[in-house]
Amino acid sequence: MNTASAYGVEAPDSGLVPLQVERRDPEAHDVEIAIAFCGLCHSDVHTVRGEWREIDYPLVPGHEIVGRVTAIGQDVTLHAVGDLVGVGCMVDSCRDCAACDEGLEQYCDKGAVGTYGARDRRHGGEVTQGGYATSVVVDENFVLRMPPELDPAAAAPLLCAGITTYSPMRYFGVEAGDSVGVVGLGGLGHMAVKLAKAMGASVTVFTSSPDKADSARALGADHVVVTGDDEALAAARRSVDLVIDTVSAAHDLAPYLRTIRRDGALIQLGVPPEPMPPVPVNLLMRHRIAYGASNIGGIAETQEMLDFCAEHGITADVELVRAPELNQAYDRMVAGDVAYRFVLDIASLND
Amino acid sequence: MNTASAYGVEAPDSGLVPLQVERRDPEAHDVEIAIAFCGLCHSDVHTVRGEWREIDYPLVPGHEIVGRVTAIGQDVTLHAVGDLVGVGCMVDSCRDCAACDEGLEQYCDKGAVGTYGARDRRHGGEVTQGGYATSVVVDENFVLRMPPELDPAAAAPLLCAGITTYSPMRYFGVEAGDSVGVVGLGGLGHMAVKLAKAMGASVTVFTSSPDKADSARALGADHVVVTGDDEALAAARRSVDLVIDTVSAAHDLAPYLRTIRRDGALIQLGVPPEPMPPVPVNLLMRHRIAYGASNIGGIAETQEMLDFCAEHGITADVELVRAPELNQAYDRMVAGDVAYRFVLDIASLND
Repeated sequence: MNTASAYGVEAPDSGLVPLQVERRDPEAHDVEIAIAFCGLCHSDVHTVRGEWREIDYPLVPGHEIVGRVTAIGQDVTLHAVGDLVGVGCMVDSCRDCAACDEGLEQYCDKGAVGTYGARDRRHGGEVTQGGYATSVVVDENFVLRMPPELDPAAAAPLLCAGITTYSPMRYFGVEAGDSVGVVGLGGLGHMAVKLAKAMGASVTVFTSSPDKADSARALGADHVVVTGDDEALAAARRSVDLVIDTVSAAHDLAPYLRTIRRDGALIQLGVPPEPMPPVPVNLLMRHRIAYGASNIGGIAETQEMLDFCAEHGITADVELVRAPELNQAYDRMVAGDVAYRFVLDIASLND
Repeated sequence: MNTASAYGVEAPDSGLVPLQVERRDPEAHDVEIAIAFCGLCHSDVHTVRGEWREIDYPLVPGHEIVGRVTAIGQDVTLHAVGDLVGVGCMVDSCRDCAACDEGLEQYCDKGAVGTYGARDRRHGGEVTQGGYATSVVVDENFVLRMPPELDPAAAAPLLCAGITTYSPMRYFGVEAGDSVGVVGLGGLGHMAVKLAKAMGASVTVFTSSPDKADSARALGADHVVVTGDDEALAAARRSVDLVIDTVSAAHDLAPYLRTIRRDGALIQLGVPPEPMPPVPVNLLMRHRIAYGASNIGGIAETQEMLDFCAEHGITADVELVRAPELNQAYDRMVAGDVAYRFVLDIASLND
């Protein structure tokens, strides 16, 4: 066993504090990674604050992990010592069900094993600990190759925010000439804009903040609709094929459903802790619109997304934070005060 | 102008009473039809009782119309005097938008013209009057050919209940080996069972009434789940690809969403007057499930459905009602006391 320095929660109200976590010695198919950067995701906040479910303490969050391989198990063929690699939201799955066979480990029949706070069935049910830590040990099949041409800190958020927005756009076949709406301009939203543009779509950003219009355009948005502006919303009626909704608080979908063309869809990526308002059936029916949700992406698709980002020069817009600033960064995330993703500089854990 | 005997509402609380309605003389592309039968649809009840929207009085409902052609306009080529024909939920559309061009008149950009209670834009905006009447005049392009091998009274409900359930199953590509769930065993539900079986699917009926189990099986259902039975619901978890939800009152979708396999969908066909309970986003996300709605079907697809029904010997199970029994029939529909569709015998209007 090896000990990693980490930041995590010790108790429901402890906030994030320095911790030590044990990492197993690499087994035959394991990769040991010295973590360099880890993105901060809204789901980290929901989880460590117990807003989604009861958790086991202590808990180290973090599932946008980038680092270098420091050791490999004897049977590892996919990665080598020194490689720049990534780990996203999953570290294992049953690898035996139809979903796993199709490369959709995120929909594993037995449930994928989350990168933190999950019971690791192949390792005695121990609770997984995430990437706000100096190292991690992960099965090679759940480790991604990070394209060397991408800045590693800015590429870390691709492993959750990137794949979470990429996957539904691929599933719905977004291509040149399509029109994609993006609701919310945070970590996920800003990735959705960049990825949709790279797929050749026209992009409309819906935001409640008039002062985000310029930054939305700077990211590549073709149109910006301020959601408090009824006239602008009316002008956007039935103008998009697919809405990627990244808002993680409960909100009314009706204004967005009205912007969707026949046979289009609204895909929600946030899971608000409180119930959403009712979905107006008549708005779905009038133009045969689907309302759905999507959960990250499979391992193969995540690699595809990383390669796509390398090809198109896409990374997240990030602000580096040091470990002692984590609690403040969480508060700023909740307040929406980040453009657009915090990334923890793991070197600061060793200070 | 010709006068038709009819039954309709004169005022918000009049109930259905005998009325006279004017029908235009057939224009160049019009077909005049002596109506023989008209099905009673739940939407008739919602509409005439003002539960969906304010209506103009008087109003004659009815959009499951079967009868014989008695006269045609000079340019009519699609139908001839003496033909057995049908009229469903639409009598016109703009015929110029992308939806109309694709044969999806029900999603017309300008709104299809409903068979009753709609402003008929091509005829001075007069309010359309439906099929609880001795005759109707309709443009030939919105008149269907009724297959002679089907009993005309029992075939009338195909024009709404049939196409409304057929269209989403075709849209989602239901085929042999698929599994279709049907929620609610009324007019639409019983058609969904018959049509899904004819498409080769395995059918699970969800019903709140244990005493409907035998009749569901008699209609062809392979499985029946009584929704109050938690064990049966748990056993049905992730067993169906597509749920056709025909319930027209507000209801919780969670139990049904749990029965759907990855990448499946729940399609709602009723529009409850009151808001639906919130849709649990996590249930959609866990297996990438879509929640949608569907609105009848286009004219070409309705003809395809009628021909499909003729090929498979499918009609509705109907109970004939006479005009003076209409109000009682409405009350029985609301109470769910019909197996499975009332059809008005138009001959009774002349008594």
